[in-house]
Amino acid sequence: MVSLDYAQQGFQDILVTLDGAVLTILINRANYRNTFTTRLWNDLLKVFDLSDRDDRVNVVILTAEPTAPAYCSGADLENGWSSLWEPEAEKEGDHAHRDSGGVLAMTIYRSRKITIAAVNGHAAGVGMTALQLPFDFRFAWAGAKLTFPFVRRGIVPEATSSYLLPKLLGTSRANSLLLTGATVSPESPYIKDLYHQILTAREAVYPAAKALADELAANTSQLSIAYAKGLIQHPGNSVEENHILDSRAMKLLGSSPDGEEGVLSFKQRRLPKFTGKLTKDMSVWYPWWPRIDVRHHKTKL
Amino acid sequence: MVSLDYAQQGFQDILVTLDGAVLTILINRANYRNTFTTRLWNDLLKVFDLSDRDDRVNVVILTAEPTAPAYCSGADLENGWSSLWEPEAEKEGDHAHRDSGGVLAMTIYRSRKITIAAVNGHAAGVGMTALQLPFDFRFAWAGAKLTFPFVRRGIVPEATSSYLLPKLLGTSRANSLLLTGATVSPESPYIKDLYHQILTAREAVYPAAKALADELAANTSQLSIAYAKGLIQHPGNSVEENHILDSRAMKLLGSSPDGEEGVLSFKQRRLPKFTGKLTKDMSVWYPWWPRIDVRHHKTKL
Amino acid sequence: MVSLDYAQQGFQDILVTLDGAVLTILINRANYRNTFTTRLWNDLLKVFDLSDRDDRVNVVILTAEPTAPAYCSGADLENGWSSLWEPEAEKEGDHAHRDSGGVLAMTIYRSRKITIAAVNGHAAGVGMTALQLPFDFRFAWAGAKLTFPFVRRGIVPEATSSYLLPKLLGTSRANSLLLTGATVSPESPYIKDLYHQILTAREAVYPAAKALADELAANTSQLSIAYAKGLIQHPGNSVEENHILDSRAMKLLGSSPDGEEGVLSFKQRRLPKFTGKLTKDMSVWYPWWPRIDVRHHKTKL
Repeated sequence: MVSLDYAQQGFQDILVTLDGAVLTILINRANYRNTFTTRLWNDLLKVFDLSDRDDRVNVVILTAEPTAPAYCSGADLENGWSSLWEPEAEKEGDHAHRDSGGVLAMTIYRSRKITIAAVNGHAAGVGMTALQLPFDFRFAWAGAKLTFPFVRRGIVPEATSSYLLPKLLGTSRANSLLLTGATVSPESPYIKDLYHQILTAREAVYPAAKALADELAANTSQLSIAYAKGLIQHPGNSVEENHILDSRAMKLLGSSPDGEEGVLSFKQRRLPKFTGKLTKDMSVWYPWWPRIDVRHHKTKL
Repeated sequence: MVSLDYAQQGFQDILVTLDGAVLTILINRANYRNTFTTRLWNDLLKVFDLSDRDDRVNVVILTAEPTAPAYCSGADLENGWSSLWEPEAEKEGDHAHRDSGGVLAMTIYRSRKITIAAVNGHAAGVGMTALQLPFDFRFAWAGAKLTFPFVRRGIVPEATSSYLLPKLLGTSRANSLLLTGATVSPESPYIKDLYHQILTAREAVYPAAKALADELAANTSQLSIAYAKGLIQHPGNSVEENHILDSRAMKLLGSSPDGEEGVLSFKQRRLPKFTGKLTKDMSVWYPWWPRIDVRHHKTKL
Repeated sequence: MVSLDYAQQGFQDILVTLDGAVLTILINRANYRNTFTTRLWNDLLKVFDLSDRDDRVNVVILTAEPTAPAYCSGADLENGWSSLWEPEAEKEGDHAHRDSGGVLAMTIYRSRKITIAAVNGHAAGVGMTALQLPFDFRFAWAGAKLTFPFVRRGIVPEATSSYLLPKLLGTSRANSLLLTGATVSPESPYIKDLYHQILTAREAVYPAAKALADELAANTSQLSIAYAKGLIQHPGNSVEENHILDSRAMKLLGSSPDGEEGVLSFKQRRLPKFTGKLTKDMSVWYPWWPRIDVRHHKTKL
């Protein structure tokens, strides 16, 4: 049995607080401009995995302490890219490498809870990709300097950003960001549609994210969110396939206590109180899509 | 032989008017806030099916009488979601349910005519999904309150909205709408790109839609629209596949009387007069994509 | 061995200049409103093919001389659409036709170099499709009249525009352009997100494009751009597939001299000097996607 006591996990680079049904993760490497290291990566993988399994949690917010010089200034490049290569993969060949940013991005993307990135400082590289794109919502400080610098660093857009960003914004804006490596403000026409809200004051970013989180945590169904995210991420290959999928999800939830409470609260003109929980109320039909095992000796791509 | 006399169809919840080549459908349940019922659903299925087959029709507009309190305030929840379940499907299991909103959305989406939703009032639930997303163009009253409330009602985004909305707007804006269930105005940055035009006065919405409809009905080719919609909805899986498809459509239409009239009217600097009609001039090549039979005993998903 | 001397190619309808690593192509048919002819098509096919193979070139700009009445006013319709049909295809049937605009669009889309359309005048038809949509970036003169007129000419959106435009802008805006055939300004909400920059003065369009080109040519890696474009255009069918692909590209480039220079220049707080070249430094793994042979006797669609 996995412990869901966040204080007992031995996190080193993050601070975690559960307030009601909202879990806040604070990146805690201000002295190092919140650079992305293996230690931070391990902490984040663990906390997103736990929060996905923790029925108490409806929303997860990632943010940085507002005094940090950056939300996340990218990978720690002290030892170059080669510090990212895994010894085992090195032996097997280039095809065996698995980008750590991508592993984290997929973990966050697969979360069945609402995820929010509260970008209260500058962000670069993996701070733009894994720490923003796989989230459901992004809030940003208007003064933040944002950059996807990959083509200026001799590498490529990583952490599944070439998949996620074009879907989020369309390829016209994605090109303007990924192929220039330019530094932009959140209010730039290239990137503004990425953000649910842009705040003038840096210290207002987390409270705005927390306000949305609290409201959604209280008034949305944990089950509805999980199935809705599944449908948006895996809609089927045609409108007909989608119809078959959303029909089944409608039937499952419409017949469930959460669906009944949705109707009842509407009729009674009051806020709903949903009780469905992922650990006990998800159909075995979920997930309805195959998940490729990305471990290099399992992959057939 | 199906009768195309709209006055003889026995419609109960809609009023239908053919003016030139523009068919206007008026939702006629103002006394019930234009809620969505099985009766309205049947009327809409029938009229969209007929108008697709009626060569006189180039454009179909759906709207509500401007005095109604809403364009469509969603499903009638008097009897809960369970009033939506079909007895036959109930016997077979959850996989056999077919969402009625989705059946209508697919019928509208497949229409080979230009379709316009003139949203001249508030809209919620199926009033946002089936009654807006599958249309080619949407016009809205700036004062409309719009909401996809599903995650606040214990259910999921229905009527193929998890397929259509991300394609229409990108997933960043789709998330902000579908995963919050928030009520927004048409001018909200989350939703404004959904609308072809937003009108300040409620009573200006239908006339604006009708003006576009009249102009397009007069000056576009019925065949061009049918093939163009096919190409946009079924573009192929790569730029190469699309090239093969659009080449064939170009050859078919470029060699047709409508293609010739297109060139001639251009050279003569006059408006075109297209004569091609769907019932007699569509190639057997159309549709070039397979249509999944969604009936539950036919589906292999 | 192909000659890369652009002056020796016998171009008739374009002027080509190599300045540093930026190749500028000037459409040179001002006397004919820069209409699109077989001769111009041949010149453009050849120059985009050559520039893709020429290691000296990092960026390709297409523009028109600013005194021309249009950037490109569409196909030359003097002889109707039938002048576009190939005699061989005519014999075989409609399925054998290959749209010339599409062949050019695919050639530009496949370029591994940065491509920029500097739209310094009006544009219609193929001037909107093949000569804009497959480029990485588009600059436009605010006064340009822009139109995709196909449905008003009895034909369909061509040159792979039904594939490219919905990906660039989403289907809501793509519908508003492709299904109306309306003439719009670059600042129209329907089309503005297509443009990286919109300039008030016509004569400012090319210099703005050239400034971006010069900066990117100097400071981005030729290899990074090639792999990044590959990832954006062929991201895989799921986030997991994308992770496997971007991981491999990260490993290849991160271990290369360009990746090392990216880190070193960052640490030394100086601009990078990348040396990687496509002809000698691309992995045999690229391209990782299958390319359909579109020749009609090879196609299995």
